[in-house]
Amino acid sequence: MIKKSPLAPKKFPDIPEISGVQIATGACGVRHSQKRDVMLVSLAKGTTVAGVFTQSKTAAAPIDWCKKCLKNGLARALVVNSGNANAFTGNSGIVAVERTAKRASEIINSVEKDVFIASTGVIGEILPDQKITDSLAELYKNLGSDWEAAAEAISTTDTYSKGSFEKVKVGETEVTIGGIAKGSGMIAPDMATMLAFLYTDAEISHDILQYLLSKSVAKSFNAITVDSDTSTNDTVLLFATGQAGNEEVNDANDKNLQDFSNALDKVMLDLAHQIVRDGEGATKFIEISVSGAFSDVSARTIALSIANSPLVKTAIAGEDANWGRIVMAVGKSGEKADRDKLSISIGGIEIANSGQAVLNYNEEPVVKHMKGRDIKIHVDVGIGDGITSVWTCDLTHGYISINADYRT
Amino acid sequence: MIKKSPLAPKKFPDIPEISGVQIATGACGVRHSQKRDVMLVSLAKGTTVAGVFTQSKTAAAPIDWCKKCLKNGLARALVVNSGNANAFTGNSGIVAVERTAKRASEIINSVEKDVFIASTGVIGEILPDQKITDSLAELYKNLGSDWEAAAEAISTTDTYSKGSFEKVKVGETEVTIGGIAKGSGMIAPDMATMLAFLYTDAEISHDILQYLLSKSVAKSFNAITVDSDTSTNDTVLLFATGQAGNEEVNDANDKNLQDFSNALDKVMLDLAHQIVRDGEGATKFIEISVSGAFSDVSARTIALSIANSPLVKTAIAGEDANWGRIVMAVGKSGEKADRDKLSISIGGIEIANSGQAVLNYNEEPVVKHMKGRDIKIHVDVGIGDGITSVWTCDLTHGYISINADYRT
Repeated sequence: MIKKSPLAPKKFPDIPEISGVQIATGACGVRHSQKRDVMLVSLAKGTTVAGVFTQSKTAAAPIDWCKKCLKNGLARALVVNSGNANAFTGNSGIVAVERTAKRASEIINSVEKDVFIASTGVIGEILPDQKITDSLAELYKNLGSDWEAAAEAISTTDTYSKGSFEKVKVGETEVTIGGIAKGSGMIAPDMATMLAFLYTDAEISHDILQYLLSKSVAKSFNAITVDSDTSTNDTVLLFATGQAGNEEVNDANDKNLQDFSNALDKVMLDLAHQIVRDGEGATKFIEISVSGAFSDVSARTIALSIANSPLVKTAIAGEDANWGRIVMAVGKSGEKADRDKLSISIGGIEIANSGQAVLNYNEEPVVKHMKGRDIKIHVDVGIGDGITSVWTCDLTHGYISINADYRT
Repeated sequence: MIKKSPLAPKKFPDIPEISGVQIATGACGVRHSQKRDVMLVSLAKGTTVAGVFTQSKTAAAPIDWCKKCLKNGLARALVVNSGNANAFTGNSGIVAVERTAKRASEIINSVEKDVFIASTGVIGEILPDQKITDSLAELYKNLGSDWEAAAEAISTTDTYSKGSFEKVKVGETEVTIGGIAKGSGMIAPDMATMLAFLYTDAEISHDILQYLLSKSVAKSFNAITVDSDTSTNDTVLLFATGQAGNEEVNDANDKNLQDFSNALDKVMLDLAHQIVRDGEGATKFIEISVSGAFSDVSARTIALSIANSPLVKTAIAGEDANWGRIVMAVGKSGEKADRDKLSISIGGIEIANSGQAVLNYNEEPVVKHMKGRDIKIHVDVGIGDGITSVWTCDLTHGYISINADYRT
């Protein structure tokens, strides 16, 4: 990995063993000869699964495969490679996924449709899937719980490994939710993709798991943006092994699930923030909260218009509290807004109100805030009750260097 | 002006006098003391006018004024300042516009509603309109036809002055269409805005002029993008003084207007391309054409998704024919597409076809093309008849330097 992002957390968390989840990783030479690039996860019988995938119309072959398998709601294995996205690879991409699923199912003694697959890396090159299938038997012998190695195996241009966990009770039973993620741009260079794999030992049915995951994705992975680009391979999977022996939950709104749901939100948001903090070239972590919009959906569109504006992102890189660019970004969002009702705060200090600059606001704390690493922008649209928060990073010379010089 | 863009045309064109149009410019100290920053245009009695404005919901005060005046369809004067956008300035911004219109109308002996006004520059600072109104009488004495000075007066971060003209016949009568523009980002730093002012001595009614202008804007100024950001002040105005004495045209589809319409398209597209060529930090001028989309509207959305993708723009800056990022940008556009029908050409060489890389395509001319200054990308979606072309520039360290360091 290259130089760590200045926004990286101090260390990888001590994710505990999660009963029913076993992991192995290896350097199989998918693209580079020394890089850890394949992860095999073996899951206990009866494991349920939920998934959310890229909205891209040019999605990669593994995405189509996972969507098909998800209909059964059960999983026994997960195979992930980095170095090659198996995207835009036509029929050979489909066959590569099928061969990988077949081999993994033989080794773990299950059926192919219980094997989930994800890839991340270069688009448009044929996946050398034999390097993966040839290594699966060996990986199977080495199953364990090295989460940090797993995070490394799925990474591409990431500058640090990303993991998170929470312990929480379902009814009277303590369960763990733990997971890893990768991503250092909404789509990193060719090295496409945001991937996140979460596991719990709780027993939760596929339907309820899917409900909880979808709800949580909206507030976490779908509320972050680095460069507005969307990968062909984005995948979030949540597996529940059912080994904790908690009492049955029959409904997504069961009060025994409330703490679990909150803990899931926390783990997902932590991983999502870790991805933004590894945004290519990022030097500032930016929270954009919007209130007073026509609706929550409208608030989100406005917040993302600000978060994706190259002019806003470069101003923050330059530590310039340039609220004129924020006004511009609200205006271009296409959402309902009234210029003369808009107000803007930076670092908690209101600097524009009712369509005008606040005269003689205290500039000193704003200047100080802009020099920090965590930037908070709040916009009140002043016309309704819609609220949201999204997170992004600044746009710097580092982003250009990484992305203009990548493949060559 | 700072260092000229490497994509700049060799020289400012020799725009001829246009009967009924007189221009004066001055350095009035709106923001900087030496910069030419105010333009007064006097227009012959009977001049008709058409206009197209920013879609921004946070549009500046002069935009509201022009939209109101446009209802009458007649114009006698145009006052434009650079250095201050008079945007997000509340009631004082409205009053500043009214005072400017009043003073100009007194000097040219017309009514206020015949005075059009545009501003470009910093957002959120009160416009010192007295500096403008105090100078109008002096400017009026110096009316002439220095088009290059006019282009300079309306510029902000532009690195060169932008002008264009065509001579063409309406029926038997030769007429001229000439104009100037400014802009070096869809929105330059705080220095917001794309402005374009076009003039003709032809006699054409307001309604027909508006029809021709709106049609032409769609194919020119609305088909360019530098950074996807939209200004609070974007303005295109077309004035027809009626001094050429051409025969009457009663209908926008009159065959006597066909050549005029084509010439107008040509002048508008030339000015639009000049703006892209002055894109902040631009080193490549990029044409993106899309065919085979579901509809023309769909083609446009796909083309703009490619043109605005930071990953595509940085790849081109790096002279990398990275078609995987083009696939990604098509996928994220949200438009109908079939991964397995998509094909992509760069510099006329097909490098991806039917959802896969073209094996063993001739890489040499593609590499050579990427090293040039004019880059052509063609995408065939393969599912319909929709076509379009849009133009953009690459995303470089220059863009970051200009925008991260601007206001400080």
